[in-house]
Order: sequence, then C-alpha cells, then structure tokens
Amino acid sequence: MRVLVTGANGFLGRGLVARLSTWAPANARVVLTDRSVDGLAAPGTQVLPGDLADAEFRADLLEPGFDLVFHLASMPGGLAERQQEAGLRVNLLAPIALADEVAARQPGARFVFASSIAVYGTLSDSVVTAETATHPDITYGAHKRMTEMLLADMTRRGALSAISLRFPGIVARPPSESGHGSAFMSQIFHAIAAGTPYACPVPAESSCWWMSRQAAVETLLTAAALEQPNATIIQPPVLHASLKEVAAATADVTGRPAQISWGNDEGLRKIFGSMPPLDAGQALSLGFAADHDLKALASAALST
Amino acid sequence: MRVLVTGANGFLGRGLVARLSTWAPANARVVLTDRSVDGLAAPGTQVLPGDLADAEFRADLLEPGFDLVFHLASMPGGLAERQQEAGLRVNLLAPIALADEVAARQPGARFVFASSIAVYGTLSDSVVTAETATHPDITYGAHKRMTEMLLADMTRRGALSAISLRFPGIVARPPSESGHGSAFMSQIFHAIAAGTPYACPVPAESSCWWMSRQAAVETLLTAAALEQPNATIIQPPVLHASLKEVAAATADVTGRPAQISWGNDEGLRKIFGSMPPLDAGQALSLGFAADHDLKALASAALST
Repeated sequence: MRVLVTGANGFLGRGLVARLSTWAPANARVVLTDRSVDGLAAPGTQVLPGDLADAEFRADLLEPGFDLVFHLASMPGGLAERQQEAGLRVNLLAPIALADEVAARQPGARFVFASSIAVYGTLSDSVVTAETATHPDITYGAHKRMTEMLLADMTRRGALSAISLRFPGIVARPPSESGHGSAFMSQIFHAIAAGTPYACPVPAESSCWWMSRQAAVETLLTAAALEQPNATIIQPPVLHASLKEVAAATADVTGRPAQISWGNDEGLRKIFGSMPPLDAGQALSLGFAADHDLKALASAALST
Repeated sequence: MRVLVTGANGFLGRGLVARLSTWAPANARVVLTDRSVDGLAAPGTQVLPGDLADAEFRADLLEPGFDLVFHLASMPGGLAERQQEAGLRVNLLAPIALADEVAARQPGARFVFASSIAVYGTLSDSVVTAETATHPDITYGAHKRMTEMLLADMTRRGALSAISLRFPGIVARPPSESGHGSAFMSQIFHAIAAGTPYACPVPAESSCWWMSRQAAVETLLTAAALEQPNATIIQPPVLHASLKEVAAATADVTGRPAQISWGNDEGLRKIFGSMPPLDAGQALSLGFAADHDLKALASAALST
C-alpha cells in the first residue's frame, strides 16, 4: 500500500501523520509532502518538500503511483481571499492537476479530499442534510466546491475513488496559526486553559460546528477505509453548540473559569457563528462519528 | 470598446460574428480566435488562430485587454467524454486561465460564457427554474458547472462581470458537425428540408429544449448589454416541444412531408429527450427571449 499525504505539516496533517504509524499496514510506503517540512518528524516515512502547483515537482512526487491520497494541502480562506492568485494556484489548480495525475498513474485510487463547510456559504436556519444546496460566498469555498465536483465526476467514470469531506474549523489550532477567520474557535480553548482573559469577536450565543483534530483524523481514516459509498461528498458529523456552552465545558474540564468578553463582529458571526443543526445521518450510517460530547471535545482540543 | 470572441469559427461563433458587425459600435475593436480559422471571414476584425490552453498564445491574445469577452470555445460533450485529457484542457483549464487573465488586464470586464444545460444532469419531471439543483452526469457538464462557479465568484469580488448562459443544443448545426450527442435535434430539420428519410435514434414523444442559432446569438448579445443583474447564471428561455411537434412544424414550413422512423435509444433520450418544462421568468424579466414559436424555430434553423 502506497500512501501520500499532502499538507502533511499542517495542523490536520501532523495529526494524521502521527496516527498513520499505527493505522497503516507495516509494509505501507508512506510519502509526506508540504511546502515546508520543518519539524515534521515521521520515522519510516519519506518526506518530500515542494510546491504542488509545480508540475515538475508533482511528476517526481507522484512517479511511484499511490493507492491512497490524503489531499489536505490548502490555503486558509481568509488568506486566499486576500491573495487571490496564490489561492487559485493552491486551492484550485493544484488539486485539479494532482487528481488528474494520481488517476493517470493509479486508476481508481482512493483520494480523500479535505473540503470545507465554506462550500455552503450563508446557511438558512434549516437543518443541514446531504441535500443542502451550496452557495459559497468566499473564493476558498468556491474552489473547494469546484474540486468536489471534479472529484465526483472522476469517481463516476472510475478515474478515482474519491471522498470529499466537508470539515468545519478544526480545534484547537495552535495560537500561532493565522489566516483562519475561525481562529476564535480555537483561541477560546487556549485562553481558558491558560487562565487568561480573551476578547472573543463574536457573541456568546453564536452557534458553531465543532470537531477536534482527533475526530477529524478518524474521519479521514474512516473515509480511506470505506467501501465505495453512493456519495462521493460527505458531511461528517459534528457537535453543534454555542460558544457559551463550549466555554463552560472547557472551564469544567480545565477547572479554570472562563474569562471571556464577547464581541459583536457580524461578518464573522455570519460565516462561522450562525450554523444551524446538522442531520449527518448519511455519514453516521457509514461509520463516521463526531466527538462524544463537549467535554470530550474540550479535552481533545487541549491535548493537541 | 474591445471585444473578444473565442470559438469564433464554431457554429454559434460564426453566427455571432456575422451579427457583431451590425451590433458593435463602429469604432469597436473586435478580435476573433479559434484553433482553426479556415473560412472565417469577418471584415474589420482581427483574427488570431491559436490554442487557448497555451499560456503564451493567451498572453499575446489578451495583451490589449478586453471590455467584453464571449467565451464560446468548447469541446462537445460526447467528444470530451471520450478524450478526457483534451476535454480537461479545453473545457476547464482554458476557461479558468482565460477568466483570470482577462480580469487581470481589465478588472470588471463583461465575460459572457456559453454554459450548457448539461450542468443539470438528469432532471426530474419538475419544472426547471433558476433554483433547480445541478447534478452533472458527464464530464462536460461538470466542467461547465465548475466554470460557472468560478465566474460567479469572480463577479462577487468584482474581478469580472460575468454572465453564464445555459444553452440547450442549438439548431440546426450543419450535418457535417460531429461530437454532439444531440446531433439528431439538428438532423431532423435537414432531413425534412431535403426530403430524405431519417432514422431518428429516439422516440417521437421525446421532449427537448429548442433554440435556433439566431435566438442563441440574440441571447449572447442581451447578456453582453445587461446591467449587472443579481444573478450571474441565467437559464435563457427556450421552446419546450416534442420531436413530433418539431417535425410537423418543419414539414409545414418546408412543404415537405417528414419521413422519419423513430428509435428507442434510452441513453440519448435520458440526456436530451426527457426535458421537463422550463420557467424562465428570471431571464424573461431581464429581456431574454426564445424563438417565437415552432414555425419560427424551423425557419430560423433552416436558414443557417
């Protein structure tokens, strides 16, 4: 089994790499790539730094062929909105070329794509299901949706066996990571654990979709192991809770009081803090699972 | 005013070029391109043959900047399904690059894109509206849908002012044109006009969406002249009629009896001959119009 992980040195990638050592068969050949691989330690794997938008680099990287690709490399939405040319390369042109070239070398390869709930755009109050229409309202979301469509078509004709997973903001990203508009969803955990005050930009009642990195990694592995399902696009289960509820659970788990002042950034709230309930029945029936509850979420978020 | 027409030597392109000489302002600079421009006669225009998927050619072509682009170049659906690599270049990578580079030289340029009803995939019996969901089931349709999404996002952020038009099969294409699964929709006109028998591959009751080249050209020009509407994706009005009705109108107009034997190709009928009614209210309110009636359609189809 030959496995490729792109974006391997990102937040989600590092979590997946750590888990792959126990998940993958002993004789698996695992190749990791990212633009920078500083600090990426993964014994028994091959690490190839480079730019996926560079055709020569892709030719070297993909030469052996892969049975399983985790395509996690991505430019965050806020950053891609400001740097359109770079976003186009990373979030659209690179995935198109990667999918095409993986398929050429290994037809039918499993291709697990980290898509995003940004594909939905502004949601109504209605429960989200597998049938919910998408109306992306940032370029990042449009590019993710376009890639989902490309992969669904390639799967229809047997070029790949792709699964696109619509991830919410994964928590808790390191305080140093920037570019994500949803950064407040991670900072709230760190601030409470550190016992420091935090000025949250959105109201306490903002409702978000929550997933720890551990749950996201298990979601990737569940997708990798799926028999080909009817759907190539999956909305994984998440926890649906307000910031206030998450802060309370985090305070409970850490034994420290939440010292949070709540803001009123309507733009951020509209994108990340107005999420309706989710009916993830389709994904649950396929074996996907959310974090067990908010305390489990807080514990997992703070263990990363 | 600087105007670019891609696919200018195709069936729709030639019709547009002929009409542009009266539509465009006298001082307009009109540039036409296609892979081959053999036989493309257009006094007062500049003709630049080349491959839109070639970056160097695009740089030369786009250097002056354009206020208005008609992007008609496309590989037909049947052909693109058989020649996936060429289809990817022509139907996805070239439009992405073209849109990006037109926008870089002339932000906010009007970009009229010939999309296709192939974006819908298999439709139910329900009336089609501007809200109808898309589920493309051939690669051509997926690439058209992806391009629509790209252009909608570029319009949202002011990079372009794009209008994507979802065209049905345009009639009557020359008998020599191949690659279109919907070829029977054109051949029926030619056979009746020529007084020759025709073995139509689908049943007489197959219901199609009909548009003459004249109506398609006026649709393109209406889109070019629109004030920026709320929607960047438009389903133009069409005539909704069975093959039998169209054959009768054509016999009426030509004074020749229809000598047609009807087949039962379920695959073709599913894609092209099972079209539900259309509510084109959105497009009608913006000034778009279908052919007046089936006799007008037949006359227009046979005058091309």
